[in-house]
Amino acid sequence: LKVFSLNSNMSLAKEIAKFIGVELGKCSVTRFSDGEIQINIEESIRGCDVYVIQSTSQPVNENIMELLIMIDALKRASAKTINIVMPYYGYARQDRKARAREPITAKLVANLLETAGATRGICLDLHAPQIQGFFEIPTDHLMGVPILAEYFKKQQFNGDVVIVSPDHGGVTRARKLAERLKAPIAIIDKRRPRPNVAEVMNIVGNIEGKIAILIDDIIDTAGTITLAANALVENGAQEVYACCTHPVLSGPAIERIQNSKIKELVITNSIELPEEKNIDKIIHLSVA
Amino acid sequence: LKVFSLNSNMSLAKEIAKFIGVELGKCSVTRFSDGEIQINIEESIRGCDVYVIQSTSQPVNENIMELLIMIDALKRASAKTINIVMPYYGYARQDRKARAREPITAKLVANLLETAGATRGICLDLHAPQIQGFFEIPTDHLMGVPILAEYFKKQQFNGDVVIVSPDHGGVTRARKLAERLKAPIAIIDKRRPRPNVAEVMNIVGNIEGKIAILIDDIIDTAGTITLAANALVENGAQEVYACCTHPVLSGPAIERIQNSKIKELVITNSIELPEEKNIDKIIHLSVA
Ligand SMILES: Nc1ncnc2c1ncn2[C@@H]1O[C@H](COP(=O)(O)O)[C@@H](O)[C@H]1O
Ligand SMILES: Nc1ncnc2c1ncn2[C@@H]1O[C@H](COP(=O)(O)O)[C@@H](O)[C@H]1O
Repeated sequence: LKVFSLNSNMSLAKEIAKFIGVELGKCSVTRFSDGEIQINIEESIRGCDVYVIQSTSQPVNENIMELLIMIDALKRASAKTINIVMPYYGYARQDRKARAREPITAKLVANLLETAGATRGICLDLHAPQIQGFFEIPTDHLMGVPILAEYFKKQQFNGDVVIVSPDHGGVTRARKLAERLKAPIAIIDKRRPRPNVAEVMNIVGNIEGKIAILIDDIIDTAGTITLAANALVENGAQEVYACCTHPVLSGPAIERIQNSKIKELVITNSIELPEEKNIDKIIHLSVA
Repeated sequence: LKVFSLNSNMSLAKEIAKFIGVELGKCSVTRFSDGEIQINIEESIRGCDVYVIQSTSQPVNENIMELLIMIDALKRASAKTINIVMPYYGYARQDRKARAREPITAKLVANLLETAGATRGICLDLHAPQIQGFFEIPTDHLMGVPILAEYFKKQQFNGDVVIVSPDHGGVTRARKLAERLKAPIAIIDKRRPRPNVAEVMNIVGNIEGKIAILIDDIIDTAGTITLAANALVENGAQEVYACCTHPVLSGPAIERIQNSKIKELVITNSIELPEEKNIDKIIHLSVA
């Protein structure tokens, strides 16, 4: 068994290696002067079961190409199996044709990984469980909810807890967290009454005086989650927490979270957070 | 017939469209906030023969992913054929295992393009002609030499011309240019007498008092070509010109060319040159 890490999430890879008691495999992943990726695997892997850890988070296209080229190198160096560990699966939101003539990039990425030579996939909280079906190779789909639930169970809340889904799509996820915390759920029901009229935030469920915990799989620009948090407070929630597995946190995300009614944002290290995004409100959990 | 251009070489695409008398197809290729590529094809292409123009030059990984996602979108929108026009083929230099456990990324890229759904390829001056064989789909391999030869034929040189290959690998290419210009060839024969000793530049062929024209397929950091030019002048060449099909010109390239004995560098627009790299010494030819 050999475990290699590419550049996207070295700190998680080190934790995983420590956890299972192996050293990370030696390889250098650098760039030529023109930006082309240069990979050198610096130890023999002939006949080995190889695991490659790479989140295809930002910069997503660089990270996908690193992974594909690494798989190609491993295949040509006679690895027995090539197991790709992708804590964050880039392009997962492009998982269907929402409009005519759109690509289905999540499926394309699955095909590319298989073409390069991956023999098994290990993913965490795929944006849609259907993405597992995009692969021909066996794929394990791990869940972040148990880790998030563990954290909230340990907190001493001064009131009743309610788990809130920020949109219709996330109700199943909210349900899973609610079961573990033995709490009820509520749903933010966004509706646009007419085109070009601001959305109305309607809350389905009882949140009055309660500790509301918002849950999503991905928090990207944080628009949805911060608007939801503010709506909850306006409608009488005592406190609002938020949690997610994948902290993409692009563009205005950090500023929005900082200025929102969210008391604490609980995230996992499926995506490595750059230093400048690491504000006080954020609590880190490990999926290692 | 529909012709689309992605972001790498819009000016060449416009020239090609004008040349064959069609409008470029309408599509928007942008980025989501987290850097993921968003493609919208804005006109029906059902049943059409579609051509997509994209050089996979810098930023190479972004440009490859744009191309793959575009192919996926076209395939799902029922294009009859998907013809990819890649004036510059990124990763062409990673076309063999020079060391153990290296990837063969040029082959990987061919596989990725086919997996995405390309039905035909059109390339220009592939770094090695073997790359054509990496494809299962039909691939046309066009040559830049005729265009370069055309240019030099029109110049009034005050002396005899000799075509010089800057290394052993490029002799066939130099031969082709020499035939069209009815000139002899010479070869720069680099040798490292012992490890950690500077290379010796030996010139095979007669260049004394002549107009030397160096030719290469790719000029990247311009180390090879500028050292060659200076060696030619030191060994008695009257003037040195240089030409290439693919002006990658990364890192120190422009500075090196500026400070070298090269009088004129003749390039094609297989790669779009950013404004800041466009120095006076550079002559542009079009492959449209
Ligand atoms: N990287 C991205 N950032 C923002 N939106 C995206 C991204 N990728 C896909 N989408 C859009 O988000 C929608 C899917 O999100 P969802 O409804 O939450 O599954 C699709 O209609 C996509 O057009
Ligand atoms: N983008 C690149 N920049 C510089 N060198 C490269 C690049 N890609 C591949 N190479 C190296 O260049 C060699 C091939 O160049 P050549 O001998 O001219 O065919 C290979 O041994 C590669 O390791």
